[in-house]
Amino acid sequence: MNRIRASIITIGDELLIGQTVDTNSAWMGTHLNDAGIWVQRRVAVGDDRQAILSALEEESAKSKIVLITGGLGPTADDITKPVLLEYFGGKMVQDEGTLRHVMAIFERNGLPVLERNVAQALVPDSCTVLPNARGTAPGMWFEKNDCIFVSMPGVPHEMKGIMEDEVIPRLQERFETPALLHHTLITSGMGESFVAERIRDFESALPPHIKLAYLPSYGLLKLRLTTEAPDKITAAAEMKDAFQALKKGVADILVADQDLPMGVILGNILLEKGLTAGTAESCTGGRIASQITAVPGSSRYFKGSVVSYANETKINLLHVNPETLRQHGAVSEQTVREMAEGALDVLKVDCVMAVSGIMGPDGGTDEKPVGSVWIAVGGKGNIRTMLYKFRYDRPRNTEMTTVAAMNELRKWLVG
Amino acid sequence: MNRIRASIITIGDELLIGQTVDTNSAWMGTHLNDAGIWVQRRVAVGDDRQAILSALEEESAKSKIVLITGGLGPTADDITKPVLLEYFGGKMVQDEGTLRHVMAIFERNGLPVLERNVAQALVPDSCTVLPNARGTAPGMWFEKNDCIFVSMPGVPHEMKGIMEDEVIPRLQERFETPALLHHTLITSGMGESFVAERIRDFESALPPHIKLAYLPSYGLLKLRLTTEAPDKITAAAEMKDAFQALKKGVADILVADQDLPMGVILGNILLEKGLTAGTAESCTGGRIASQITAVPGSSRYFKGSVVSYANETKINLLHVNPETLRQHGAVSEQTVREMAEGALDVLKVDCVMAVSGIMGPDGGTDEKPVGSVWIAVGGKGNIRTMLYKFRYDRPRNTEMTTVAAMNELRKWLVG
Repeated sequence: MNRIRASIITIGDELLIGQTVDTNSAWMGTHLNDAGIWVQRRVAVGDDRQAILSALEEESAKSKIVLITGGLGPTADDITKPVLLEYFGGKMVQDEGTLRHVMAIFERNGLPVLERNVAQALVPDSCTVLPNARGTAPGMWFEKNDCIFVSMPGVPHEMKGIMEDEVIPRLQERFETPALLHHTLITSGMGESFVAERIRDFESALPPHIKLAYLPSYGLLKLRLTTEAPDKITAAAEMKDAFQALKKGVADILVADQDLPMGVILGNILLEKGLTAGTAESCTGGRIASQITAVPGSSRYFKGSVVSYANETKINLLHVNPETLRQHGAVSEQTVREMAEGALDVLKVDCVMAVSGIMGPDGGTDEKPVGSVWIAVGGKGNIRTMLYKFRYDRPRNTEMTTVAAMNELRKWLVG
Repeated sequence: MNRIRASIITIGDELLIGQTVDTNSAWMGTHLNDAGIWVQRRVAVGDDRQAILSALEEESAKSKIVLITGGLGPTADDITKPVLLEYFGGKMVQDEGTLRHVMAIFERNGLPVLERNVAQALVPDSCTVLPNARGTAPGMWFEKNDCIFVSMPGVPHEMKGIMEDEVIPRLQERFETPALLHHTLITSGMGESFVAERIRDFESALPPHIKLAYLPSYGLLKLRLTTEAPDKITAAAEMKDAFQALKKGVADILVADQDLPMGVILGNILLEKGLTAGTAESCTGGRIASQITAVPGSSRYFKGSVVSYANETKINLLHVNPETLRQHGAVSEQTVREMAEGALDVLKVDCVMAVSGIMGPDGGTDEKPVGSVWIAVGGKGNIRTMLYKFRYDRPRNTEMTTVAAMNELRKWLVG
């Protein structure tokens, strides 16, 4: 297959010293794939002239398209623009459109325009300017040695705007891209190696241009099929057959036949069944509610949550019996059941998730070690409880609990 | 300065197609920096033999240390180990320690050991095995062409365990590392270019081995100084003077003189003042509470939250007057004030944050466009309200609101 190959270069010391997690590259990867462009390498380098020049040279030798983010701000540590001028040649000129745009932004915010802001409208005359509707630093499109280079700011929503409005449409116009199709399903309740054993025949019968990948993810397992074909219709037809076979092989452990966040999966079921939900959260501290409400339109099925971090709050707001807490402790089947009952009552919803556990690093005992989590899910008169035993660290335990609680309510709803 | 330079190679198609955000590299960058090792490049490649071989060759030509994660699982898409064998030579042998460890894990979980799990104990005899206490795939340490290569699984908590227990201690033993010091402070309320203008003299007077970086972050601005010196004492002394001068220059807009999450900054103030807090969240859906409780020990000052996503929940649990909602709407100064008063009352805390806004993409009007957020912070009889106007997308608006609410309560507490 004639793949159109791209490299992504991200610039900034903050990426190398670990101060910033690079979320831009994942977003760019998804959207380039949708456009039929294969990201084959991602490289991060520091705010260093020689490192940036080497990366430009090396990546353009490997890829037809090199997308660059970062280092375009108005301060002295932002050196990408002069380095691009050095690499592509030409001289700095003022871009009138950008200047007007920068002035308008500052005017709207009632701020004076500084010399260094005016400088953001300076661009090498060797580039085509790509307007940045969401910020001051414009995108810049260069061509050299049969390779396209696009430089964009590192601020995520500015990069996304330029990619959607300018870069992707222009790339699609330039290249005849093959169809690149990914399809993912999600399973729960069976380890990676056991699933692999079970679908061994399916996997070995796949044609070489269809790839299967296993992606464990917070207690779930994602299975992804990737295929490439000269056109979308051929790709879709091949994918359909393979994906149906895979789906059949894991029907009993299937969570969803798309790669959606658990908040979306659960939301879709609630919407379909016309039910409302809420949460009573102790150890997750609002994380379940926050993942559910991250979904646009979730107000149609989600009414709210009581984050009862203190025992006092469990008693006052969820009407947990103080005697239950005294006898069994906050992390117990009895408490989590009463939290669920209380939440059903005070939130006036059809179903709830309630969680109480020990996330660590402190608070564990021999009897209830760090990672012990009681979950209750269900509706009035029909509550199901379960004990999970996670290990590891606080952030991972919190995330595992969040996914597990939503998955348990999902099972209760469809079971 | 004689920097010890490292490259990180992450392997996996999921990183390139954007299915997974690479959080490993940031963690590794932080911990390597603390050990005096400079990460100069991070490269992500797919599950592809030739791409992996090229990356090994290219990165080892640039760096003394090459750390590799991913592609070590038990399934057919995991090809890192055979490629390492090809690159470093030797033959596959069974590592007895790893085999016993794998068997014990499966036994503990009551699962049969499959052929493919036993295969995880196979390692090239050209490597030193680094035990993985948290999983089945061991770390592998190779040396070639005066470069150290370490391969680790991509599962974050497994990688972290091997790094902490094995890799970093061994690297520190091997290399005499210079001291590499970063120190960051956080400001709020002034844009990047205005801060740069204000500290222009400070910046231009910095010696060349001390670097200043500007990092805008969700409405805040981080300023980072980086210095290198042959030893820690020299580095610390130089840093101290420069950092004090910087701090003085931004005293009136200073949020914290360390790079801490806002949940930690706020928690420290509450702890110091001996006050308890809670939240009443509409549009953030529990995100503020979840960031506060992400901090270990937060139960000492955080009692809980009412996530009142539905108006009904605002009325039932926070005792917001239905008339207020009818007259002014959920996103209004009056409503957010009553939410705060209600939360103070029902959570029985000393101070609260309450938020109500329109996160998008839907729900905006001409009068209250997407991104309009009312925030109330304070204690009994002393509540402060403010209107924020964000733009952009739902995830960013939610995060901006979360940080802004915590920052407003911080200002209220210290003001």
